[in-house]
Amino acid sequence: MSALRVNNLAISLDGFATGDGQSLEAPFGHAGERLHEWYVSTRFFHAQDGLPGGTLGVDNAFAEQHEQGFGAEIMGAGKFGPPNWQDDPDWKGWWGPNPPFHTPVFVVTHRPRPSIEMDGGTTYHFVDAAPSEVLEQARQAADGADVRLGGGPTVVREFLTAGLVDYMHVAQVPILLGRGVRLWDGLESLEDAFDIEVVSSPSGVTHLTFVAKPR
Amino acid sequence: MSALRVNNLAISLDGFATGDGQSLEAPFGHAGERLHEWYVSTRFFHAQDGLPGGTLGVDNAFAEQHEQGFGAEIMGAGKFGPPNWQDDPDWKGWWGPNPPFHTPVFVVTHRPRPSIEMDGGTTYHFVDAAPSEVLEQARQAADGADVRLGGGPTVVREFLTAGLVDYMHVAQVPILLGRGVRLWDGLESLEDAFDIEVVSSPSGVTHLTFVAKPR
Ligand SMILES: NC(=O)c1ccc[n+]([C@@H]2O[C@H](COP(=O)([O-])OP(=O)(O)OC[C@H]3O[C@@H](n4cnc5c(N)ncnc54)[C@H](OP(=O)(O)O)[C@@H]3O)[C@@H](O)[C@H]2O)c1
Ligand SMILES: NC(=O)c1ccc[n+]([C@@H]2O[C@H](COP(=O)([O-])OP(=O)(O)OC[C@H]3O[C@@H](n4cnc5c(N)ncnc54)[C@H](OP(=O)(O)O)[C@@H]3O)[C@@H](O)[C@H]2O)c1
Repeated sequence: MSALRVNNLAISLDGFATGDGQSLEAPFGHAGERLHEWYVSTRFFHAQDGLPGGTLGVDNAFAEQHEQGFGAEIMGAGKFGPPNWQDDPDWKGWWGPNPPFHTPVFVVTHRPRPSIEMDGGTTYHFVDAAPSEVLEQARQAADGADVRLGGGPTVVREFLTAGLVDYMHVAQVPILLGRGVRLWDGLESLEDAFDIEVVSSPSGVTHLTFVAKPR
Repeated sequence: MSALRVNNLAISLDGFATGDGQSLEAPFGHAGERLHEWYVSTRFFHAQDGLPGGTLGVDNAFAEQHEQGFGAEIMGAGKFGPPNWQDDPDWKGWWGPNPPFHTPVFVVTHRPRPSIEMDGGTTYHFVDAAPSEVLEQARQAADGADVRLGGGPTVVREFLTAGLVDYMHVAQVPILLGRGVRLWDGLESLEDAFDIEVVSSPSGVTHLTFVAKPR
């Protein structure tokens, strides 16, 4: 069965998955790149940029799962572009002409537009629908493979609340952002629905894996 | 030099150090005992109750530091009793006639009362003063030994903000409380002032140690 998986969702110790003040110049607001330093240090990430080296420990082991077995992605409007990208008819995401998805990507937004076909197998579809419907569409597109829930935090929270997430990997970075968008809001007793495993890395990052209990 | 240390401060994944609805019947509100299961499972805790057994791993190693080298404690009014204990002239804390502190304890409260001498070396002093002043008093009473900052979260936050904490051990429990009193509020960039080390335990708890950088 095609699983809905979250991989490499980075949060601060105080639970923010993005900083305050997102903009074209600052996709993560005042957080800058601090939530992702462990990730860009991995061999997995280096290799994507054609660079040698990179860390090979537990951070890399988790990072590598980002690409494995996905046939579609779901992301929020807040991940796809800076606030009000919907006003710009030419906005095609942060990732250039050949985005790293290489699958259909379902962008949930209350202001949908026609689909955009990109190079390398990525097609952006814009959908305004309930999480279960969006997942249904993404599953059909994924054709038996898994569906990645790519974030941001608002969309992850929505799909968690709807009971649709099968697996979630959260990387908790030991910094305090103080402001931004929280991942954990309104998720009281989430542990009842998941088996949780925790491992800390010498980098200071703590990897939390949530595996849905049989529903 | 006498250090100000926080030990075994337990929080949920979403950062709450106590639940919602604290009362005489529920000292931790709706959190119940869930923040402390790892702690009461340790050999350290068993031994205090004269019981055999208990875990012997990293949870126990941290738990044991709770008693080592302290000459005084500072705690908040919210730890000393249920809301409005100040209205009850007979309230003498949760811990019975022979409390486990065995040192002077400085309870910060805006409604102080005369000191209370208990059995076993514990004396409760009630102080309404700025954190630095309270620490000064506690240090004098500790006579060269360390001072424990016993919580709750509001008081810990206050002393962190004042730059007075030398060491802090936080035990993060993989549950989501959803409501209560947060530890991390208003502490943006705390990592600038501390070296942070992280280790996860097979119990699912993640132990975070904060060691103040030279000031
Ligand atoms: N830390 C990480 O690992 C990580 C991962 C991914 C992204 N991010 C960051 O997270 C931020 C974005 O997160 P976010 O929480 O602000 O936003 P988000 O989760 O990406 O998107 C939320 C938005 O999607 C739209 N939406 C959500 N559900 C919908 C539904 N059912 N139907 C129609 N539209 C729906 C709404 O936008 P509209 O009403 O405007 O259409 C909503 O405001 C960015 O800064 C991004 O860089 C971080
Ligand atoms: N998770 C853990 O490991 C842990 C550890 C300890 C306690 N706890 C729990 O935490 C809860 C209590 O925490 P809390 O954050 O609600 O309260 P708290 O930190 O114990 O106490 C805060 C209160 O102390 C008084 N106060 C603080 N600073 C003061 C100052 N400078 N001068 C005078 N008074 C001052 C004020 O009370 P007044 O204005 O009323 O006097 C303030 O509301 C309890 O549920 C307790 O069981 C948890």
